[in-house]
Amino acid sequence: MNIQPLMLKVDLSDRSYPIFIGENLFTQDLLRRYIRGKQVLIVSNPTVASFYLDAAKSACLDLQCDIVLVPEGEEYKTLATVSEIFDTLVEHKHRRSTTLIALGGGVIGDMTGFAAACYQRGADFIQIPTSLLAQVDAAIGGKTAVNHPKAKNMIGTFYQPRCVITDINTLKTLPDRELRAGIAEIVKAALIWDADFFEWLEKNIMKMLARDSRSLVYAIERSCAIKIKIITMDEKEANIRALLNLGHTFAHAIECELGYGIWLHGEAVAVGIVLAADLSYRLNWFEKDSLLRVKNLLTMAELPIRLPQSSSVPKLLDYMSTDKKRDESGLRFVLLKGIGNAILATDIDMNLVQEILVNHVGEDGD
Amino acid sequence: MNIQPLMLKVDLSDRSYPIFIGENLFTQDLLRRYIRGKQVLIVSNPTVASFYLDAAKSACLDLQCDIVLVPEGEEYKTLATVSEIFDTLVEHKHRRSTTLIALGGGVIGDMTGFAAACYQRGADFIQIPTSLLAQVDAAIGGKTAVNHPKAKNMIGTFYQPRCVITDINTLKTLPDRELRAGIAEIVKAALIWDADFFEWLEKNIMKMLARDSRSLVYAIERSCAIKIKIITMDEKEANIRALLNLGHTFAHAIECELGYGIWLHGEAVAVGIVLAADLSYRLNWFEKDSLLRVKNLLTMAELPIRLPQSSSVPKLLDYMSTDKKRDESGLRFVLLKGIGNAILATDIDMNLVQEILVNHVGEDGD
Repeated sequence: MNIQPLMLKVDLSDRSYPIFIGENLFTQDLLRRYIRGKQVLIVSNPTVASFYLDAAKSACLDLQCDIVLVPEGEEYKTLATVSEIFDTLVEHKHRRSTTLIALGGGVIGDMTGFAAACYQRGADFIQIPTSLLAQVDAAIGGKTAVNHPKAKNMIGTFYQPRCVITDINTLKTLPDRELRAGIAEIVKAALIWDADFFEWLEKNIMKMLARDSRSLVYAIERSCAIKIKIITMDEKEANIRALLNLGHTFAHAIECELGYGIWLHGEAVAVGIVLAADLSYRLNWFEKDSLLRVKNLLTMAELPIRLPQSSSVPKLLDYMSTDKKRDESGLRFVLLKGIGNAILATDIDMNLVQEILVNHVGEDGD
Repeated sequence: MNIQPLMLKVDLSDRSYPIFIGENLFTQDLLRRYIRGKQVLIVSNPTVASFYLDAAKSACLDLQCDIVLVPEGEEYKTLATVSEIFDTLVEHKHRRSTTLIALGGGVIGDMTGFAAACYQRGADFIQIPTSLLAQVDAAIGGKTAVNHPKAKNMIGTFYQPRCVITDINTLKTLPDRELRAGIAEIVKAALIWDADFFEWLEKNIMKMLARDSRSLVYAIERSCAIKIKIITMDEKEANIRALLNLGHTFAHAIECELGYGIWLHGEAVAVGIVLAADLSYRLNWFEKDSLLRVKNLLTMAELPIRLPQSSSVPKLLDYMSTDKKRDESGLRFVLLKGIGNAILATDIDMNLVQEILVNHVGEDGD
């Protein structure tokens, strides 16, 4: 029997939209209900398409339906790929009333959203996230982006979708490594905002890794609810929304230094969370025991908690200095005052940051 | 003595901004007042820069000020050029608080606005339009764009500047041909909305061509006021804003068919206005005498009123079918019910459109 579908509402006045979470959702008329024009363009990657493209297309039988398949990986999240999406839209004479559907993970969603935001100054956009990471994080909140060769997500817009359709059946075909990467963002959400949820994760992490449907739906819903709460307070990241970047200043530097596509984003975030937690601990804001719980939960999820062996600390520091989260007063860090309690901090001693980076390169010597 | 500067306000709630029109404006502290961060990037072209870059830079002496010069012409209004702007911003570590300043005509303004809209999901943006066309049209209203090889302004966003600074001294160095191209958009504004202003233009066109400052300021202010009135009713072109596209469905097709950069946009618009006026006349909506007045005014301004000799009517029709202004019910035309009274029309007989195109190719046989 299917789990009863849930609906969460993202309340952003005239840009409000629903998030549906359940099973067998995008093969139903749900998708069709959110398409206003007579044309759709589905953007996906070859792997996801092999599993789910037919189902998505079956909801669009009475429409002009074109497809763009993008090779898998963060290294294709570029202006060049978006340019190919524009070529297809123009070639097939898509009008401003067309709907772009992102069928895939965070890379597909971020890039398709950006294309939708810019095609004829704004076409409709629907998210069908198929990775756990996209379901709990990337598909929610209207951040669209592509990468610049030297800085992640440097180019993009805020652009909200018409709806998000999260069908957890798509997780059945998700590789283990990507499932774990999604768990990193779930841990992040709990750490920022919700100590009870963190505790729930400590108890249920093995069920999630075993892909127990009810545990996954619960964790997705709770993560989405945290993110919705934060973004409806601050859609365009003037202040509190920046909390969602816990671990991300470090993570983006790791991804840039390694080159896109070596580590998954969630893997870099896991290490970033540990670095942020350790930095908070060294500043006497975060308990030793809490730091151990963070490391322990991520280790149970089989996520990395140390930097790649090859990391160059000077390069990481340089990438961090280019990060979007830098403002006039220097780098802005998201740190922890406790589990479930994140804060924004500036004026952090960069020598301490450097020391923490050095201590976390490669295998643990302990 | 300087003409007293004017200020018009574009009222779009939290995206409201002022337009200043006058002499010696951007060398004063006016520009500085609208820069919030500590970094600026000025985007210009080599010709405009040779005249006005130093003045603009002198307002930014206490700031990090970087420059991107883009070769002149519509053919450089591409994603590739915007990508170079992003490269400069990233390389020089511009933060989200940076301000992009467009110093130039419509091409520079559209492209810089698009770069500002997308850099780190939205940097500040100031327009300093230096062509008459940009001062009366392109710089007002928040449409940003680059061209797709097959369709004009296909890629862009709605993104409002922090302010527009129109210094009519910049018109002193504007080539005659570009001055006339700007007059085409002024004629367009009058035709859409303001019969008295059209009459004023008929009387004062020679003064404008002679670059009489008071006449130019008056025409710029009146054109801006018409555009502001329309866009504040309909910022994102759901309906009435489309009136501003009078002549533009034809003009975009002409520009695509000729190749970007052969005719100036305003020249194509002039012919587009004549075609729209003739179509309106053939539908018995527009008087013969009014049609003659339109042709006469454009001819006085030494603007073209016929299609290029080389035009292929089938190709023009094909380009029109790709135009953004097409919706489910087919091509949407802006037509005239009289001077100062434009309307939106669909279901226009394409055979009639074809006939009018054929009749307007090359030299007039009359």
